[in-house]
Amino acid sequence: MNHRNQVDPAEITEVLKTVLRKGNEPVPLHEPCFAGREWDYVKDCLDSGYVSSVGPYVERFERELARFTGAKYAAAAVNGTSALQICLKLAGVRAGDEVIVPALTFVATANAVCYCGAIPHLADSETESLGIDGEKLAGYLKETTRLRNGVCWNRRTDRPIRALVAMHTFGHPVQLDLISRVCGDYGLALVEDAAESLGSYYKNLHTGNFGKLSALSFNGNKIVTTGGGGAILTNDEALYREAKHLTTTAKLPHRWAFLHDEVGYNYRMPNLNAALGCAQLEQMEKFLRLKRALAEEYRSAFAGMPGIRFFPEPSYARSNYWLNTLILSEENASLRDPILEDTNDHGIQTRPVWTLMSRLPMFRDSPRMDLSTAESLEKRIINLPSSARLGEPYAKPESSGSS
Amino acid sequence: MNHRNQVDPAEITEVLKTVLRKGNEPVPLHEPCFAGREWDYVKDCLDSGYVSSVGPYVERFERELARFTGAKYAAAAVNGTSALQICLKLAGVRAGDEVIVPALTFVATANAVCYCGAIPHLADSETESLGIDGEKLAGYLKETTRLRNGVCWNRRTDRPIRALVAMHTFGHPVQLDLISRVCGDYGLALVEDAAESLGSYYKNLHTGNFGKLSALSFNGNKIVTTGGGGAILTNDEALYREAKHLTTTAKLPHRWAFLHDEVGYNYRMPNLNAALGCAQLEQMEKFLRLKRALAEEYRSAFAGMPGIRFFPEPSYARSNYWLNTLILSEENASLRDPILEDTNDHGIQTRPVWTLMSRLPMFRDSPRMDLSTAESLEKRIINLPSSARLGEPYAKPESSGSS
Repeated sequence: MNHRNQVDPAEITEVLKTVLRKGNEPVPLHEPCFAGREWDYVKDCLDSGYVSSVGPYVERFERELARFTGAKYAAAAVNGTSALQICLKLAGVRAGDEVIVPALTFVATANAVCYCGAIPHLADSETESLGIDGEKLAGYLKETTRLRNGVCWNRRTDRPIRALVAMHTFGHPVQLDLISRVCGDYGLALVEDAAESLGSYYKNLHTGNFGKLSALSFNGNKIVTTGGGGAILTNDEALYREAKHLTTTAKLPHRWAFLHDEVGYNYRMPNLNAALGCAQLEQMEKFLRLKRALAEEYRSAFAGMPGIRFFPEPSYARSNYWLNTLILSEENASLRDPILEDTNDHGIQTRPVWTLMSRLPMFRDSPRMDLSTAESLEKRIINLPSSARLGEPYAKPESSGSS
Repeated sequence: MNHRNQVDPAEITEVLKTVLRKGNEPVPLHEPCFAGREWDYVKDCLDSGYVSSVGPYVERFERELARFTGAKYAAAAVNGTSALQICLKLAGVRAGDEVIVPALTFVATANAVCYCGAIPHLADSETESLGIDGEKLAGYLKETTRLRNGVCWNRRTDRPIRALVAMHTFGHPVQLDLISRVCGDYGLALVEDAAESLGSYYKNLHTGNFGKLSALSFNGNKIVTTGGGGAILTNDEALYREAKHLTTTAKLPHRWAFLHDEVGYNYRMPNLNAALGCAQLEQMEKFLRLKRALAEEYRSAFAGMPGIRFFPEPSYARSNYWLNTLILSEENASLRDPILEDTNDHGIQTRPVWTLMSRLPMFRDSPRMDLSTAESLEKRIINLPSSARLGEPYAKPESSGSS
């Protein structure tokens, strides 16, 4: 290896320490920030007794989510995985189908497919967004599938490929125009796994508006949290109504009778958690501003360093920078673990990307295309501390609103 | 009909008004009571930032649940339905199996069976507990099944019957000795749906200790609530570990790597919800005392009324009286809806029992035994307002603890 391009783990740690300005205080990967009306709203739940399935915060949270994302409808759910399961079901995924998912994703994306009795079919990534490589996928589908009555049929497994889940890695929007075109050409329902991309825009339109349905997550490590929670976005009123119905045990409205017309789920978000979410959403603009300032600081701190680079938002997108990311050059891949060790030893929580789905035992036999880019990325990605508050030293003060 | 035995809906409403002492104030069926340290614990979550999957309240809640129920292990879950799904999976239920469930239950019991790809097989009720009639079931299984290598095989459907879910209706413990014996005789794994029976004892042992695994619920209408939540009880350490593993995405412990060794679930309870649960559990003895006093008041208020009776705990059990229950005589069954109407019109929330699973469209083809008792009960049950605080006028003051 050219010594000049070799990365030094200790140097990475020093740069991070400088950016994070935390001295010896431990810095977690992503912690929530409760600096708004969280306590007021949560206390209101306790005072009113409405903490569970009944109460005004769930509807309010749904309204605010729709407003913020520009989606016509939002249905709150108990978490992002459950939301994605319902999205897939409503997109028409049935037992025995295959669903295209990125190999490079959190395991929940593929698990949700399994909950429908379907089989994850693993796709490779491209390097501008880290999401599914639409061009490569199109070539692969052309070679290995054929359309039968408008349904994409996997000629190798003799199963229908019903849908595609596009995931916005670390908040960076995938190439949605291309992915949408591939879905159109091959009759695949597009579902967005937007768990990480609340606040991220593809060409000025918020992510979650391109899929037939899309799933959001409000887990504790996300840009806003409800403790645990998720939501389903859609612009289709009928799908929204079905989403609400399926997430609330498929109960038909009646003054007292318990009539359920299909196998439904207990996936509604409790009012207590929605209350937290309402307070969090009010701070979205601030969180986005702080996270963008932190990302810019990381970018400039690593700008001159050979062998490693800060991963920026794609040219066509405005990202929420949910998790900031370094990518090692191929010749430095072997230093990923030493860097993870050194940074974590110094109290700076970093982590690698998820193990590729193709390497997890339960997906060992899942159909897949060539995954060489995802395999290379997996060895070279390092996520950095990304809590909004870490951007405070770098953010411009809030605009006065008079401009 | 003998006029002397005819129930008068207006009279029922008057009796309820007297017991409830609420004047014209509306009385919900069951509302939670936050009179303990709920605020302190929830605020602690917000102050510490631990609202989600990390935080000390989940473990504390699990410890307190185990202590209270006497079960060796408790694993908190996102709700009771999810807990039951995991119980069934760990009891060995697989796609294509049948599982015995009561026809008279909330839909979640049967849905959880479906989530495993299994088929609910509906059983009749007896009238002492309203739960599964073990004697009748034994006769039915003898006639319709045979044992093959220790597995109960349904001769009519040619499918294995893998497990039985015993549900403790309205908190009243089912005849567990009898049910356990039937399960033993026919090689069925016993799972308790104890969603309604926290605080209920079968012959001095808390419900949830008889099944291989048992599910609790802390939905907003339960005796204690976490907003939404549930738990899995077991006395088997290996099953407990698997329950924790499955409810937390089957992730293997590692300093940073994302390794998952099977298709797991995002079913852990958030710390925020567990905090509420810890405060609620501290008040269990009080809630039980108040609810028992209310039940006693209902019992005595309806003692002299012909054509209708208050449903008492079974002779062998001590019930939490989660939902107080009236049962009409057969000749008064047609008055169920007029009574529901009159009471609800007067702001007293009453409700009928759940529609039998056998009458819901998605279970229309489910295998079943004769369900005549459940069918008769369905027409005659009325649940009464049962919040703990309604017992306040009738409860003896808390014992001083000096006895």
